[in-house]
Amino acid sequence: MATQISIFDTTLRDGTQSEGISLSAEDKLKIAVKLDRLGVHYIEGGIPGSNTKDIEFFQRVKQLNLQSKITAFGFTRRKDSVTEHDSNLKRIVESGASAAALVGKSWDFHVHTALQTSLEENLAMISDSIRYVKQHGMEAIFDGEHFFDGYKSNPEYALSVLQRTAEAGADWIVLCDTNGGTLPHEIHEIVSRVVSQIRTPIGIHTHNDCELAVANTLAGVQAGARQVQGTINGYGERCGNANLCSIIPNLQIKQTYECISSEQLSQLTNVARYISEIANVHMPVFQPYVGNAAFAHKGGIHVSAIMKDAKTYEHIRPESVGNKQRVLVSELAGQSNVLLKAQELGLNMDNNNEKTKEMIERIKNLEHQGYQFEGADASLELLLRDAFGELEEIFTLESFKLFVEKTADQAVVSEAFVKIRVGDEKIYTAAEGNGPVNALDNALRKALVQYYPNIMKMHLADYKVRVIDEKDATAAKVRVLIESSDIDASWSTVGVSPNLIEASWEALVDSIRYSLLGEIKQQIAQEPASGRLGIVNH
Amino acid sequence: MATQISIFDTTLRDGTQSEGISLSAEDKLKIAVKLDRLGVHYIEGGIPGSNTKDIEFFQRVKQLNLQSKITAFGFTRRKDSVTEHDSNLKRIVESGASAAALVGKSWDFHVHTALQTSLEENLAMISDSIRYVKQHGMEAIFDGEHFFDGYKSNPEYALSVLQRTAEAGADWIVLCDTNGGTLPHEIHEIVSRVVSQIRTPIGIHTHNDCELAVANTLAGVQAGARQVQGTINGYGERCGNANLCSIIPNLQIKQTYECISSEQLSQLTNVARYISEIANVHMPVFQPYVGNAAFAHKGGIHVSAIMKDAKTYEHIRPESVGNKQRVLVSELAGQSNVLLKAQELGLNMDNNNEKTKEMIERIKNLEHQGYQFEGADASLELLLRDAFGELEEIFTLESFKLFVEKTADQAVVSEAFVKIRVGDEKIYTAAEGNGPVNALDNALRKALVQYYPNIMKMHLADYKVRVIDEKDATAAKVRVLIESSDIDASWSTVGVSPNLIEASWEALVDSIRYSLLGEIKQQIAQEPASGRLGIVNH
Repeated sequence: MATQISIFDTTLRDGTQSEGISLSAEDKLKIAVKLDRLGVHYIEGGIPGSNTKDIEFFQRVKQLNLQSKITAFGFTRRKDSVTEHDSNLKRIVESGASAAALVGKSWDFHVHTALQTSLEENLAMISDSIRYVKQHGMEAIFDGEHFFDGYKSNPEYALSVLQRTAEAGADWIVLCDTNGGTLPHEIHEIVSRVVSQIRTPIGIHTHNDCELAVANTLAGVQAGARQVQGTINGYGERCGNANLCSIIPNLQIKQTYECISSEQLSQLTNVARYISEIANVHMPVFQPYVGNAAFAHKGGIHVSAIMKDAKTYEHIRPESVGNKQRVLVSELAGQSNVLLKAQELGLNMDNNNEKTKEMIERIKNLEHQGYQFEGADASLELLLRDAFGELEEIFTLESFKLFVEKTADQAVVSEAFVKIRVGDEKIYTAAEGNGPVNALDNALRKALVQYYPNIMKMHLADYKVRVIDEKDATAAKVRVLIESSDIDASWSTVGVSPNLIEASWEALVDSIRYSLLGEIKQQIAQEPASGRLGIVNH
Repeated sequence: MATQISIFDTTLRDGTQSEGISLSAEDKLKIAVKLDRLGVHYIEGGIPGSNTKDIEFFQRVKQLNLQSKITAFGFTRRKDSVTEHDSNLKRIVESGASAAALVGKSWDFHVHTALQTSLEENLAMISDSIRYVKQHGMEAIFDGEHFFDGYKSNPEYALSVLQRTAEAGADWIVLCDTNGGTLPHEIHEIVSRVVSQIRTPIGIHTHNDCELAVANTLAGVQAGARQVQGTINGYGERCGNANLCSIIPNLQIKQTYECISSEQLSQLTNVARYISEIANVHMPVFQPYVGNAAFAHKGGIHVSAIMKDAKTYEHIRPESVGNKQRVLVSELAGQSNVLLKAQELGLNMDNNNEKTKEMIERIKNLEHQGYQFEGADASLELLLRDAFGELEEIFTLESFKLFVEKTADQAVVSEAFVKIRVGDEKIYTAAEGNGPVNALDNALRKALVQYYPNIMKMHLADYKVRVIDEKDATAAKVRVLIESSDIDASWSTVGVSPNLIEASWEALVDSIRYSLLGEIKQQIAQEPASGRLGIVNH
């Protein structure tokens, strides 16, 4: 039978130590629901009483009746004090959480330098605190801060901390590489030693300062740890915590450990992207397993091999983690990339088809003009669907005008005027913006919102400009890449022109067209008579 | 004595397989110079003859006389063909590179599925190709593609590939985890086996699909590999290649291996950020060792411990990799850089000087607003010269106006109107352009050319835009970097604003100011009486 590994998620606690992440109580509740569905065993929600958000979270999360064990985090009691009077510990037992994660020192240097107390008092602080939460009916998880540094400095003392914790009745003892400086072979050696001496189940909590957090977690499990602590997308202080989105598939797909069900595992990509949206953090496309580029293929040789057998250049089936294969159409690649892409979209395109040849010729031409579809999946999809007659023109541009003015003593002003036609109606709108692209975006949406109200739900997430032929930059062509997202998805579009504004407009229009694709699909589902997918054209 | 590890950088070859990275020949040359200074032993420049950029790179890099060995990449000869007639191999030996990295199959499945040839012919393809480049006086590096998957599937065949490669005279045999799916303990076991059987020095090349590329490289080295292949910032296909910015310090600071000198290691952060600028890729703040948050402390408890002793929450001294501790909001990358720069310009700037403190405060403020001077030397020089009273205001902007108009049936039009004052004279010019920046550039030069005729000799060579805070792209701040050049030199300037046009204008004006700096120096040399350097101000 497979060995069960307990997954302890600390996105809501250690994850919020990440620079730039700040979650409201509402955000935390949404994330907790998602984590529960993913099947993590523990959700560390925060520090009860440290701030109003965390108080609200612990109050409201009870009503959700989640299966995951809600865990409250806190410190062991203050030095030279009485446990029963410790307000932090009191708030933990009053939080309603079923488990308490208490952090204590296991590095003699820290006891002396940071805590400024005796080694013996530190042992008492830990032991008293564990007993206290146990007496109040909570499950007790001990986080041994800096355990690995502590073990290297004074193994006897570090082990005596664990011994006392076990005697006090802790349910889990978690070994933390708090500074993230330990190497995998050291983790393996030290965890093995601990497991041979301590009966309490052991957990492993690592940080990514050496880009080794995932490897260190695996080394810990291999040496006998049975709980892993980490965060979704590896959020956390400095370089982040161990990334559960990589750890879970590494344990479960590539080895024989069991963490969550296969069905839950197939939700991993969705969970990772959802939480990045809630946290308002850009999701790196290169992220292993769940990133947008994790199963993306660019080189022509790779692509032709993949068409023979995906295993040639994919280490797992992307679907097992809810991700999918993407073929990047670029100058480096051949037409096999385009065919595969069409296949992915369910379009009937083959080598002998006349339309296919035309299509490939057209894409080649566009690439020759400077378009690059490898970073602009959505533009490529629109192009292919259009070629297959799946898109209907819904609006046409009559004109846009843009006006930017700066005077020495006043702030710069940007105004856009957009004239479009939708069916027989002419719509003329004007809007201001922070900059020219924002002004155009505002004016265009203003024109379309009456027809497509959902257009206000998407937003532009990133914007990049690159000169294609650098030899004569401001007179040369530029390529604009826009990345957009809404709550469910993100997509990229491209525009090329010698004119920066025109290139931006083109990418902007594609982004909105793509966004409407989903909405129009829904409209058709409701009124199947209308047949084709109606979509704007520019 | 410390074991020496050979560093093989493939940023310019495998790194360009990364989604969204596209480097010009000029970009590649700049990166090569930086890599050479960092002290990497091999620079893999590309595939000679595969495209015009790579041809230009190999031609021009010879003139730079770099210490790193320039390496040309290619495939072993085609199946059932004669090595001497293989145009790819021919181009490699003609490239002028001192080393050839040839990739061949070592997984029987790939020989059958992707290559569609016999196992014996594959051995001959490899052996013939290695002999061919050796006969032409090149160092031969063999990249065993999918070696680990191959070994797991058919260890005898995988080892026979290495055996034949060694017999053919390869200088290095590199084991590649091409799909990135192998775990560290497997890497350790397989590399150990190879090292015990093969005399040729072994290298390790890993990918990050399991978030284990760095750990896998370390496992390889621990098992006896003596070359590591990777890229700066881990750029590469899908989830990226092994990240040299983490591997080098992990080997050299945390273990006893020797890769580059300590002085070179202290340039690591600078190199990583410079290359991310050239590649126009966002540098993740969380990146281990070299990221902006790698040594940033947010929690109050951590900060107070750190004030007692930095070792409490830092695994290494940040300075050893050229990074620095950040506590609270202290944005500046290093005031020592500013001092060094001032010294380089012959400005009398020291720590105790009141003006110096003011200057550093001002730069900090600008960096806080999103300016970045690492990629904009010329803007920094102007700032410093200005602070030291070395620049005189020659023109002031009264206003600019910009119109862009597009109608359905006509080409887009861009017009700029620039009103400036030079001394007592007001100059008002209008100009068209290919795009908005070109129109502004044209109008501004038209206004200045009567005073500074040489202004027509410079041109803008590259133009890059980056959204600083991606959360709300078209309403967020953008940073524009402009690179300009004339016959003798090239220089970079920066502009930041929520408005793309204003940011471009700012970088444009700095570029012209910097260009005039040289011209005005010459004017002063001819009329020494005038004293100060006159220069435009905006």
